[in-house]
Amino acid sequence: MISKKMENMVANSSAIRAMFEEGNRLAVIYGADKVYDFSLGNPNVPAPQAVQDAVRQIFDEEDPVVLHGYTNSNAGYQDVRQAVAESLNSRFRTNFAARNITMTVGAAGGLNVILKSLLNPGDEVIVFAPYFGEYRSYADNYDGVLVEISPNTANFQPKLGEFETKITSRTKAVIVNTPNNPTGVVYSEDTIKKMAAIMEKKQEEYGTAIYLISDEPYRELAYDGVEVPYLTKYYTNTVIGYSYSKSLSLPGERIGYLVIPDEAADSDKLMDAANVATRILGFVNAPTLQQKVVKKCLDEKTDISYYNRNRETLYSGLKELGFECIKPEGAFYLFMKSPVENEKEFCASAKKYNILIVPGSSFACPGYVRLAYCVSYETIVNSLPKFAELAAEYK
Amino acid sequence: MISKKMENMVANSSAIRAMFEEGNRLAVIYGADKVYDFSLGNPNVPAPQAVQDAVRQIFDEEDPVVLHGYTNSNAGYQDVRQAVAESLNSRFRTNFAARNITMTVGAAGGLNVILKSLLNPGDEVIVFAPYFGEYRSYADNYDGVLVEISPNTANFQPKLGEFETKITSRTKAVIVNTPNNPTGVVYSEDTIKKMAAIMEKKQEEYGTAIYLISDEPYRELAYDGVEVPYLTKYYTNTVIGYSYSKSLSLPGERIGYLVIPDEAADSDKLMDAANVATRILGFVNAPTLQQKVVKKCLDEKTDISYYNRNRETLYSGLKELGFECIKPEGAFYLFMKSPVENEKEFCASAKKYNILIVPGSSFACPGYVRLAYCVSYETIVNSLPKFAELAAEYK
Repeated sequence: MISKKMENMVANSSAIRAMFEEGNRLAVIYGADKVYDFSLGNPNVPAPQAVQDAVRQIFDEEDPVVLHGYTNSNAGYQDVRQAVAESLNSRFRTNFAARNITMTVGAAGGLNVILKSLLNPGDEVIVFAPYFGEYRSYADNYDGVLVEISPNTANFQPKLGEFETKITSRTKAVIVNTPNNPTGVVYSEDTIKKMAAIMEKKQEEYGTAIYLISDEPYRELAYDGVEVPYLTKYYTNTVIGYSYSKSLSLPGERIGYLVIPDEAADSDKLMDAANVATRILGFVNAPTLQQKVVKKCLDEKTDISYYNRNRETLYSGLKELGFECIKPEGAFYLFMKSPVENEKEFCASAKKYNILIVPGSSFACPGYVRLAYCVSYETIVNSLPKFAELAAEYK
Repeated sequence: MISKKMENMVANSSAIRAMFEEGNRLAVIYGADKVYDFSLGNPNVPAPQAVQDAVRQIFDEEDPVVLHGYTNSNAGYQDVRQAVAESLNSRFRTNFAARNITMTVGAAGGLNVILKSLLNPGDEVIVFAPYFGEYRSYADNYDGVLVEISPNTANFQPKLGEFETKITSRTKAVIVNTPNNPTGVVYSEDTIKKMAAIMEKKQEEYGTAIYLISDEPYRELAYDGVEVPYLTKYYTNTVIGYSYSKSLSLPGERIGYLVIPDEAADSDKLMDAANVATRILGFVNAPTLQQKVVKKCLDEKTDISYYNRNRETLYSGLKELGFECIKPEGAFYLFMKSPVENEKEFCASAKKYNILIVPGSSFACPGYVRLAYCVSYETIVNSLPKFAELAAEYK
């Protein structure tokens, strides 16, 4: 009786649920500390103390009727939007105002709002493999057609040649995610400039507007001082989707924002559409208490040194064991080459050692596996002897 | 450049925005206490103190990594779902378990999740006029077709004769909203039983499953001891969409739940689909802190006596002035007959007295107007002389 689209989605998502249940099952048998679960991107660094302090302060300051009420605009509290805009302006020398900011139910909510606002059925949305598998569902929600650019396994920067050939008159949006899930790669300024030039050329050629949607939940998680270019500065028709899920370790609270710059094509209509889409998709508005929290925590950061130690230890440990992987520059994922072509087989072998990792096929990049290292340091350290046993199988 | 669907939606929603802006404009000119804004269903009774106490207690008790993390299931925390189920069981003698509960981003989120889970393009969704206008958008999000039953202006119970004739083999869902927005009417047990009998007969006739979706944000707002029947007890294929927006005055926090009973057709698939739909629509999960809050506040209630005093005062005041309206039994809306056929004209006249009310056309019931009396008591009292002046115009 359920919808046909959903029947397929449920079937496809059973693999992830199965892995989750497998993790639980193993934890019961062997103890949680003997299970090395690298499958989920759920931050293990707690939210900064400032988050709790902010909530207590907000309760003291705000009228509960207003605090927990519907916001006047579905795009969020005016003061919060203004504060977000000013914070961006001071960090990235942009010129945003409150009107350019739509507070959203995380980045996932934001991406749905902007795709709902933009897509007509059949419109094409380009993504670069490997990519977060949910993009397929998000585009499909609005009958968009996902167009994949094949992975560049040399360094996981996007394949720009192929990109250029795959832009058509139906291309409405291009989604980039940098720092990237699942590779941890940060797209370089050079990459961004070339990508922008290609899109500008194609816009002119087709007389269309092609929106660059930058999905940025991992922006603040960049290591070794690597710069993450702010994309509105390189390409006019850019929309940013941000989330505090990782930067403040608040993924369950569902709080983020969209930036729709004035310079973007049809920006007034797009801002209005985002406002209405927020309402009619059922979000109504981003959770109000959390809007006020992030306003008070704009300068707070999660403890990135914890993830960095995990990154260094896991990367060097795996390299020493002979695994092939590129060093992640950001986010909390490591993308590793499977020693056998069928990486699902490799994932199944890993499970024998209580190691849970995600097949690259889930990110349209078979032959690789993703390790989410947002786990305890002890998990990393204790997993390495198990990875050694796993490696020995493939020698 | 924006989506064609959204272009229409933006155009249609500009009327509401215009009214909101008009309210702000009038407040600046005349002072907020001289503007009688009955346009918005935003509760003016504060959340119970227990909500703040719960948050402080949760911060003391819970590990922030878990508290603010993604929930293991997109349907929400197991303990919260279990507590909601038990609370329902004790209040309504139902037999729900945690699996029957999907925590949602308010009722609006829940309705989108269930419609996404159920609808194939072209499937019909029946609503009874007058109805909350967003249902049209929600059905349209999944290419459903809204089928309206015309209003029964005698008492605003649904027109069951017309209902029976409009059920087809494509009817997938029927949405009811009781206590009702905009009329304040509660569907009687007799109505519900007759409605269930019709749907059962039609299911048999067509060999289909027709889901009754009960949108219940106003369940706890019922006056004079009127009973609001719990619909799963009358019809097997019932799904409940609940929200704490009004019962705990938390509309901005976006917290509610769906109930999918075991007895509903294809219930296992439907629960799985709701779980996946919650994720792919971009909600991911209902805000986690608020999930824990409602668990601690399951026995809390908003101060309904405040709304009740407003109801009595407004209803008797308007009746005395010669306006025609039925006495609301629930929610915080009063539906009044416009003294002229074109109620938009009447709304425009009201504005001259700084009275803001919503045309019934927004609820597919022209000739009537909606007054949201979730305002301060002073607003009610002070508005009545203005209503008197307005009434005099139509004598």
